[in-house]
Parts: sequence; structure tokens; C-alpha cells
Amino acid sequence: MQFLLEVMEILTNYVRKTFDRSTKVLDFHHPHQLLEGIEGFNLELCDQPESLEQILVDCRDTLKYGVRTGHPRFFNQLSTGLDIIGLAGEWLTSTANTNMFTYEIAPVFVLMEQLTLKKMREIVGWRNGEGDGLFSPGGAISNMYSVMIARYKYFPEVKTKGMSAAPRLILFTSEHSHYSIAKAGAALGFGKENVILLSTDERGRVIPADLEAKIISAKQKGYVPLFVNATAGTTVYGAFDPINDIADICEKYNMWLHVDGAWGGSLLMSRKHRHKLNGVERANSVTWNPHKMMGVPLQCSAILVREKGILQGCNSMCAGYLFQPDKQYDVTYDTGDKAIQCGRHVDIFKFWLMWKAKGTVGFEQHVDRCLELSEYLYNKIKNREGYQMVMQGEPQHTNVCFWYIPPSLRNIPDGEERRERLHKVAPKIKAMMMECGTTMVGYQPQGDKVNFFRMVISNHAATKSDIDFLIEEIERLGQDL
Amino acid sequence: MQFLLEVMEILTNYVRKTFDRSTKVLDFHHPHQLLEGIEGFNLELCDQPESLEQILVDCRDTLKYGVRTGHPRFFNQLSTGLDIIGLAGEWLTSTANTNMFTYEIAPVFVLMEQLTLKKMREIVGWRNGEGDGLFSPGGAISNMYSVMIARYKYFPEVKTKGMSAAPRLILFTSEHSHYSIAKAGAALGFGKENVILLSTDERGRVIPADLEAKIISAKQKGYVPLFVNATAGTTVYGAFDPINDIADICEKYNMWLHVDGAWGGSLLMSRKHRHKLNGVERANSVTWNPHKMMGVPLQCSAILVREKGILQGCNSMCAGYLFQPDKQYDVTYDTGDKAIQCGRHVDIFKFWLMWKAKGTVGFEQHVDRCLELSEYLYNKIKNREGYQMVMQGEPQHTNVCFWYIPPSLRNIPDGEERRERLHKVAPKIKAMMMECGTTMVGYQPQGDKVNFFRMVISNHAATKSDIDFLIEEIERLGQDL
Repeated sequence: MQFLLEVMEILTNYVRKTFDRSTKVLDFHHPHQLLEGIEGFNLELCDQPESLEQILVDCRDTLKYGVRTGHPRFFNQLSTGLDIIGLAGEWLTSTANTNMFTYEIAPVFVLMEQLTLKKMREIVGWRNGEGDGLFSPGGAISNMYSVMIARYKYFPEVKTKGMSAAPRLILFTSEHSHYSIAKAGAALGFGKENVILLSTDERGRVIPADLEAKIISAKQKGYVPLFVNATAGTTVYGAFDPINDIADICEKYNMWLHVDGAWGGSLLMSRKHRHKLNGVERANSVTWNPHKMMGVPLQCSAILVREKGILQGCNSMCAGYLFQPDKQYDVTYDTGDKAIQCGRHVDIFKFWLMWKAKGTVGFEQHVDRCLELSEYLYNKIKNREGYQMVMQGEPQHTNVCFWYIPPSLRNIPDGEERRERLHKVAPKIKAMMMECGTTMVGYQPQGDKVNFFRMVISNHAATKSDIDFLIEEIERLGQDL
Repeated sequence: MQFLLEVMEILTNYVRKTFDRSTKVLDFHHPHQLLEGIEGFNLELCDQPESLEQILVDCRDTLKYGVRTGHPRFFNQLSTGLDIIGLAGEWLTSTANTNMFTYEIAPVFVLMEQLTLKKMREIVGWRNGEGDGLFSPGGAISNMYSVMIARYKYFPEVKTKGMSAAPRLILFTSEHSHYSIAKAGAALGFGKENVILLSTDERGRVIPADLEAKIISAKQKGYVPLFVNATAGTTVYGAFDPINDIADICEKYNMWLHVDGAWGGSLLMSRKHRHKLNGVERANSVTWNPHKMMGVPLQCSAILVREKGILQGCNSMCAGYLFQPDKQYDVTYDTGDKAIQCGRHVDIFKFWLMWKAKGTVGFEQHVDRCLELSEYLYNKIKNREGYQMVMQGEPQHTNVCFWYIPPSLRNIPDGEERRERLHKVAPKIKAMMMECGTTMVGYQPQGDKVNFFRMVISNHAATKSDIDFLIEEIERLGQDL
């Protein structure tokens, strides 16, 4: 118990410092440096036990050499921030240390999951919140579920006979969509080449006519178009595909419509921004990750399904040792047979607790505030010297994509030399940021566009001054490149 | 901060009481009772926020109506117990709130995972601990990985072209094995009917001759036998399939050998018991869940792979926005593209910290002790009046399977009536146990055997007196049935 209290002391100190802007975001070291052991921090495992004092030192060192993802100047991922209620929820979850597969051993958590999923389905717009769903270990697995249940809906015999029982099935998703759709296609036996990438407009949104043309072309080849993924909030551009137009096409060709709202689904909480997902209520399934835009600690991802019973039908194996039909309670509350997992981590409690503490209105305020901050950033740099926006127009989500052009490149005409040099700018600035430990922001190329920064905001602790700091820092580090 | 300290107070009180045998294992309520709201515990989510005082009450109530999986008399699942170091590790993990996909945002955790997986591969017996692996969200997903990479090894074109590019592929697994192999077969597009179940001996171990006969039969039909799963520690009987004999057959027919050691893999830590997995070093892949027999908090499951590079080859999609090749550090440390997940929860730290605190020898002692306790139970009841063992001989793992025969059934001759009545005994006793809240133990039917109790021990807090208590409690609750 004394040990637990000392750990708690370490953790509360860490949390306090995380919100202190004078603390570094990270204390960067290369893998070989950490492996060699810095100041006695030894990662190797031994036969003999260490003392509890040494364990406490190990805990401190682990935090010291890690990355403060809750720091107000950490902008590197879609999941940022450290919500105190969520953190308390996750501590309680660890202490309860149970498993979601049966009501028997997780009665409260199972009911919380049911109620929360129903609430989310209501917000999606399904009648009375009807349908089904699960929390899964991340958006990629949620998306994988959507492909599995689409296949089960149209070709249930695949469950028993395998893919050879079905014709050649085609999945469609945007070239800007998350790679998990292609990964699911490969894993589930469709094959990557049967995942057709759709063209997008300059903002990264699927062009519906391209979808229809590709469906027709697949049908002409004798293939069966099965599934369309519409992304609500793409990873890089934050683009929202036009769901209603896509839903029209899915209805016309009798296809499954999935909306990947891992990143953008949370805008449904905002009366101001939810129109960006208009048509989502027409989807057959929706991925929505509260661990991204809603600031819930990792992991917390929901797969929502409009048709009740299909998750169970798709995945059930009826294992007698776990799902006994002769229990004393109503066993329809046992959720395990719907999942591809057996044991399933309790991801619901922290989210439920945050919802209790903030109310629906609290999440709405959080979403609105993050979007205001991104608008602030966009307005600040769109005409600023040395910046070039990757696309025109206000951001749809909090993603702001831009190049920083160092003074040495500003007078070089567009062409191969400039492109090559510009491609190296973001990685260099990022590396310096990490070595200074002052801030972190992502970059990547996209299509024929060379490396650019992708700024995203989901941290409730971030303010305009942190946005200002980021810009100053990019300029400080980049001016002599 | 004050709030966090109050939560901490609630949690430490809970932990203290969990180890107190006068505390109930659970305070059972039916779903409708909890949904109606007991003593003001309201599960519904609202638009408006609740006060922090109410949030603290919610935390207390959540624990109150849950199940104490760390209680010394909780024997219901393979994962039991509450290790204090592991718990501290999980609290730290939640506080760090990061993601395993890149070294960039989880430098320390990524290295801990690498070193720990290497250590586990050394213990499996692969030369210099070479190979690959990942921590995944549970044994079912680890087993799914094994099927995916087996397919990729023999038919890499399936990744691109889908299952139609391969002949009809057959997976083999014991009729006593975990249902996740069949689930993986269904999900990945093989089809459940191409997952052939192998016959077992009276102890639940695969009969190698049956495997060979079924392989030959599949080949005669023109199918391609691809994969054999050998279980090390089955879920119900705790049986260990004869790995060496199975490995001989896999070599002869050029098939992938997977060992599902989700439950039994931990016996590798014990010099006394590891012989039960003899031949495991010949496997191509191994599932091993430290969150079961080693007492690590949920979730912690490893998939180990003998051939380096194949996980990456099977799953990589090379997303530019996450796995930039032009980072300043050695990007081979970015593990995300090996996984079917994108974001991946940090499951390593609690395990690493426990290993530091206990040493390899500490895990060995824990395993040996649990097996001694199960031997104690077996010896206590094997000749006791009113008990009938499901199988003869000492348990291979901590699973002890038995019927309790109430006095009213003892003089009824074996036959349909006795079977029917006996089938109802375990569920009734279990329901009463749960209503009294005194202890919990699992039951299930198996094949033609009616419901029997399956006792398992993985909790470091359990002692002989708790075993004695379980037996007394079964007799107290069952004597008048």
C-alpha cells in the first residue's frame, strides 16, 4: 500500500508537470542510447527481483524518457490531451481488472456499454437508438468489423464455406481514407486489389461520380460491389466525404455503406458542425473513436451497427464454457460472442465517467473549441509570409495542412529543385523540435505533394498562445534551412 | 488534483478490501435491477454535467456492484488476481496515455516490448531469441495473427488477390481447443467448415494419428492442409497437446505449426513444468498470455513468430502519414505496420515492471505454487464422497474438473434421469454462490458430459484455506439439491 501511494505521488507530479508549459514535451533519445542505459535506467529483464525502491526509480525513468501526450504543445497525433476524469476512470478500470465478455464478471461495465452505445446510435440518428455495437481495440478493428458484417449480410455462407462461396467482392474507399480498410481487405481474404481507391476533389473528398463509374466498371467485369467506406474526417486533410450522395449510390446498387468516423464522428456532438456528417443516419455501420476528438484516454473506439443481431450472427461460435445458456440471469447481456476477441478490455468506463462529468454539452463545447482553434491557426497563416496552404478554404475538421517555406527557398521558382528541397524541410524542423523537446507536430507527403505539416487539435489544454508558439517555433527552427 | 487524490483513496480502499476474505466476491444484481438504479446509482447519461462529488459516488458505486476479480476466492476465469506492481504499472500506462505504433511517441515502451518479446522467444527456445512478435488485444487476436501469417507464408498472393488465389486451405485444431481458431477461420475467409476438429484422448489431448489421417483425407479431396494449432493448456481440461508428435507431422506435410499457449504458455517459466510444452521450439508461432497464469493485469497477450519479417510482410500497408521513412531515428523501431491495428494500447509496461519486481524466478515460484494448489484440490476431492472426477489422473495444468453429486443423486443409477438432474446441479450451485457472493467458479458441459465444475487457479492470493472454503461452500449449497 505504501508502494502504491508512492507511485501515486510520482503520477500526480507527472500530471501536474504535463500541464506546465515550461516542461519539455519530450526528452528525445535515440533507440541505441536508451538501450545502452542512460543514467542507470536499465531496460533489460533479469532472473532476480529488483527492490521496490528501484521499481519506483524505474517508474520515474519510464515517464522521464517518454513523450508527454497531454502537454498543451503536443499536436503530433489525432489523440492528444490528458483528461483528469478520464484518467481517474482508467485507473479505476485497471483496479477492477475485469473483462467484457460476460455480464457475470462485468455487470456494471456491460450495462454502461449498452447504454452508451445506444446513446451514440441516437446521436447518429438511428430510430430510438436501435441497432447494435461494441467497443473494439481501435478504429482499424472497428473498420474491420464493418467489412466482416457487410460480407455476412450479403453472403452469410462465407462464414461456413469461406470466400470461395462468394463471387469476387469489391470494396470501395477513398484514396485519402485510412489504410485500415485496405488492411481489412487483405486480412479478411478479399485481397488488396479488390479494394478500389476512389478519386477525390482538391479537398480530399470522394467524388461520387467516380464511385459510380467504378461500381459500373466492376459490375461489367462480373464482380460484385459489396461495400463502400465513406470517411468522416480523413487522417491527413480532415475531409468529410459527401455521405448523402454516396448513400444514394449505395441504395441504387444495393451495397453496404460504412462511415469511418474514427476521427470526425465526434463532430456529431456539435450542433454547429454535425452537418458535415449529413446522411450518416443512412449508413449501415459507423466507426467512432471517442479516444480521438473527445479526449477520452486510449483506447476507446466504437463500431455501431444499424441492424440488430448481425454482429452476433457474423461472429458467434457459441462456446459452451463461457456462454452457458443456463445461467440465472438474462444471458442476452453476455456480449462476448459478438466479438472477434474472447477477452475484451473494459474501454467503456472512462468514457462513461467523462460523459457524466461533462454532460453532452461538455463534449460539444470541447469540439467547438478545438475547431475554433484550428480556424485561428488557419487565419493566422493563410496569408503569412513563408507559408503555403496545401488546400484552399477553411478546414472542415481541425486538420490544417501547410508548407513552411524557409527564406532560402522563397525566391526559387516552382520546379524539381524547389520540390526536392521543400520535401526535406518538414522532417528537418520536426527532428529539431523533437531534439529541443519544445513541441511536436506531424508531417507527411500525400500523392504528388511533398512533405507538409499536418496540424491537428484535440487537446482541451491547448490555447491560442500554444498555436502562436508552434508558429514561432517553426520559424525559429526553419529560418536558416 | 484533489479529485485525483480522492479517487486514489477510493481505489486503495477497494484494493485493501479485495484481499480481505470477509469481503464478498460480488454483490449480485440482475440487469434490470441495475438498470432501474439501485440506491440512486443511475447509469443513464445526461446532457448536463454532474458535480465532482457525484462522480466520486459513481466511482464508488461502480466498484460496489462489480466483481472483485482479485479476491482470493474468485476462481471463475483463467485471469484472476490483482498484482500490486502490475496495477501500479497499469496506472502509469494510463497516465502516459500513448500509443505503440511509433518509437516517436512511445520510445521507452517500444523498446520494452522488443526486449520482453526477445526474452519470451528465448524462453520458448528459439536460437538467440530471434524472430518477431507483438502484444495484441488478447489471445483470440494473437491466434488470428498466427493463421494470417501462415497463409502469407505459403500463399503470399492472397494478400493482394484474395482467397480465390489459393486452393482450398485447411486448418486443424483440437475439438477441445479455444473457439478463436474457428473464429479466425470464419473471419479470414477460410470458412468454418475448413477448420477441421481433431479427436482427443480421454484427457483432452490431440491424438496425432487422427491429425495425420485427417491431413491425408483432406489431401485426397484435393485440399491443401496449411496449419495446425496445438494447444498448450486447453480452456476446460487444461490439456497439453503432444507438440513433438504434431511437429513431426507438420514437418512431414510441410505445414505451419502454431502453439496456442494463451493459458499454458506460462508453464515455460517453470523448470518443473515446462516439459509439458516439449517441442514448442519447433513451432512457427506461439500465443502466450501473461494476463492469465502470470497474473499480469488485463490485457497482455503476445504473438511470437519464429521467422523475422513475416509479420511485416503480411500486414504492411506503408501509410506515409504515420511511418515516414525520413525520420531522424532508426525507423525499424516503428512497429505499427506489423499490426492489423493502427493505434495499439500499451500492454507491455505492467508486464515489464512485474518482471523487474519478481524476476524470472518470481514468475516460476508463482506458477509452481498455483500448480501445487491444484494438486492439493485434486487430492482432496478425488476420493471424497459426493465427488466424481471428469478424468482420471493428476491435472496437467491448474484445471481440476469435477462433478459434485448431491446426496439425493448418489443412489440413482447412471442413466438419463441422473444425467438430466446432474446437469442442473452446477448451474444451481453457481447461482447460489453468486447470490451469496462468497465465491465464484466456472462450469460447463463438454461433448457428451453434462455440466461440471472447472476449477482453475491463477491468483497469487489464493491459499489452501480458500480451496477448502470452496469445497465446503459447494457442499453447503449443494447438499439439499
